[in-house]
Amino acid sequence: MDLAPLIAPNDRKIVVVLIDGLGGFRDGDAGTELEDAATPNLDALAAEGSTGLVEIVGPGITPGSGPGHLALFGYDPLEFQLGRGALSAAGLDVELRPGDVAARGNLCTLDADGRISDRRAGRIASEVAGPLVERLQAEVAVDGVEVVLRHEREHRLLVVLRGAGLDHRLADTDPQVTGVAPRAPEALEPAARHAAAAVAELDRQVRRILSDEPANAVLLRGFDTQTALPSMTERYGVDAAAIAIYPVYRGIARLLGMAVTPRPDGLAGQARQLAELWDRHDYFFVHHKAADAAGEDGDRAAKIAAIEDVDAALPAIRELEPDVLMVTGDHATPPQLSAHAWHPVPVVVAGPHVGRDDTDRFGERACCRGMLGPRPMTHMMPLLLAASGKLAKFGA
Amino acid sequence: MDLAPLIAPNDRKIVVVLIDGLGGFRDGDAGTELEDAATPNLDALAAEGSTGLVEIVGPGITPGSGPGHLALFGYDPLEFQLGRGALSAAGLDVELRPGDVAARGNLCTLDADGRISDRRAGRIASEVAGPLVERLQAEVAVDGVEVVLRHEREHRLLVVLRGAGLDHRLADTDPQVTGVAPRAPEALEPAARHAAAAVAELDRQVRRILSDEPANAVLLRGFDTQTALPSMTERYGVDAAAIAIYPVYRGIARLLGMAVTPRPDGLAGQARQLAELWDRHDYFFVHHKAADAAGEDGDRAAKIAAIEDVDAALPAIRELEPDVLMVTGDHATPPQLSAHAWHPVPVVVAGPHVGRDDTDRFGERACCRGMLGPRPMTHMMPLLLAASGKLAKFGA
Repeated sequence: MDLAPLIAPNDRKIVVVLIDGLGGFRDGDAGTELEDAATPNLDALAAEGSTGLVEIVGPGITPGSGPGHLALFGYDPLEFQLGRGALSAAGLDVELRPGDVAARGNLCTLDADGRISDRRAGRIASEVAGPLVERLQAEVAVDGVEVVLRHEREHRLLVVLRGAGLDHRLADTDPQVTGVAPRAPEALEPAARHAAAAVAELDRQVRRILSDEPANAVLLRGFDTQTALPSMTERYGVDAAAIAIYPVYRGIARLLGMAVTPRPDGLAGQARQLAELWDRHDYFFVHHKAADAAGEDGDRAAKIAAIEDVDAALPAIRELEPDVLMVTGDHATPPQLSAHAWHPVPVVVAGPHVGRDDTDRFGERACCRGMLGPRPMTHMMPLLLAASGKLAKFGA
Repeated sequence: MDLAPLIAPNDRKIVVVLIDGLGGFRDGDAGTELEDAATPNLDALAAEGSTGLVEIVGPGITPGSGPGHLALFGYDPLEFQLGRGALSAAGLDVELRPGDVAARGNLCTLDADGRISDRRAGRIASEVAGPLVERLQAEVAVDGVEVVLRHEREHRLLVVLRGAGLDHRLADTDPQVTGVAPRAPEALEPAARHAAAAVAELDRQVRRILSDEPANAVLLRGFDTQTALPSMTERYGVDAAAIAIYPVYRGIARLLGMAVTPRPDGLAGQARQLAELWDRHDYFFVHHKAADAAGEDGDRAAKIAAIEDVDAALPAIRELEPDVLMVTGDHATPPQLSAHAWHPVPVVVAGPHVGRDDTDRFGERACCRGMLGPRPMTHMMPLLLAASGKLAKFGA
């Protein structure tokens, strides 16, 4: 429902600790990573508060990082979508402006006939690809269009075109198969013809500059523009701050109008920043990446250790006495799959007005019996607002 | 979903016992009020039937009395909304007719310059305000418009304008602050100009009549008109009766087309009326107010006692052998907050075709593990219809 008419801002503090990729699943007698981690502080939080199991986007849906975090912040990820270009830009701290055209690029290899022989240029190493992208940035010059080229990792780069009269409604130049030529840039709407011409010129120059390299062209997909998302202040009346280390999460936070702190140094640094900023904001998002990275690597032990690290950092956060404290994940990353997955994710919320259920363990099976029950992640933001007194009564 | 094509009326009896403000939350080792109340009869009902935890409007949303009861009766409170004027009228047993314009009024104090010095006339006592409103009713006369003025409590009154060509789309005259003059009546749509002129004339007369009183004007807000809600008979094929003591609940029941019994005298009187009417209706709404009132007063012991009073009245109701009996609340009223709140509310349903889960206690933590699970309150009405055989099969 539209919360806007009910929003009643105040200074009470909401803290959200996000353990990226927290969820897992059991396929034998052992517990999930969270269940088998030693988490005395999270268990104590579960004992004091209420727990549940959240589905992030919908049943069976594996969320990307964009939808996972949008749902966490109460934005329905089916209604608000971040394109690949916008997410790449956010991930690189490149701020898109209205009218910018952004795309995800692949360095690729074309054969002598101009057909794609490798869409990822042999998964070119970052150490090789980085300087190539820098060289492109230095040498490319398209009339009337500022071109921003930023290396991401391996073959991946971000391409941003900036200038008057550009429009992002372009078809991908990446045909997603080998043995054919890249597609010519094509405007899907007449308004995008100028942008198509700029992409064609960029493509000509890239091929010339890289003609002697194994990676000798760039394929583009996911053309996108600045997505104007309503800010968390507009939607909820909160003054939010993001304390995150990795670029993509800092970027998503920025897209939602959060203040983004200087890049902190690990969990201890994050807790320090939280204390420093305590009087200046009333919603704090603390992001921890390592559990997801370990899950993606299929490394169960490392994921357990990453969760235990968050548990160890919890007392420093609790010392600040937030009015509401939530710990959860943005999706499951089961080591068995080495990937994001659709499984539900445990959530715990505690605070003086939250209520206390019977759960005294933070884990999938325990939280499944908690009073928050199984529910969509998007429910959590209104519950946090309510528990911090930021939502007025509905109806006479 | 639209139940209309499935409705299969019969004579089986549904009884809904509504403990107003039933829900609560734990913030320590003690239970909620319901958990700590001695409720042998409600516990026996839980043991025989199925239990769950219901959210009334949505996660984190604190329901007013209107939305709380609409959800109880299966009306989506986001789709069906009752304005303050309509609810005030319902609360005073004033039946609005199509075209009536109703508003909530405040007796207020204007200073010598016509600016508001007190929006509530010093929270004028009911004993003083009542006669003032009666005097206004006797003396006010607006050409072509019938004016109904009814005192509610302290500074509050209901104002209804009745006559041809009126429209309720008027801005509040109450600026909600002191130190400024009341706003002149303003039509938000051209159709409401006649109503605005009538309100302006009413305002002039009120100020003249009350010129020597400390409460010397009336501020108006929440202009509303008759809300034509589909009746429970239209929606569900039931012939419903409301056995309620407090005006607002009698009023809401009347708006939904329920027969409203003569004001009963306490729970014993309500049980007596239920028995007397048993053969004449097939849906009975029994409303108990005291738990909410105690919660609003922050009086945990009184709320526990109010719940125990309902428990003691239950055998007389069960003697009638309803085909389905549900006991629940319309929202939480935790004594810790002395107000309505968003927390989920326990529900128990029993009857020969309901099903029996493992729960044998009626309380938040027990019901959270019940077979009805956590779910929106609007689900309950179809479940009651099904369990009394009033819903046909869907699809071939």
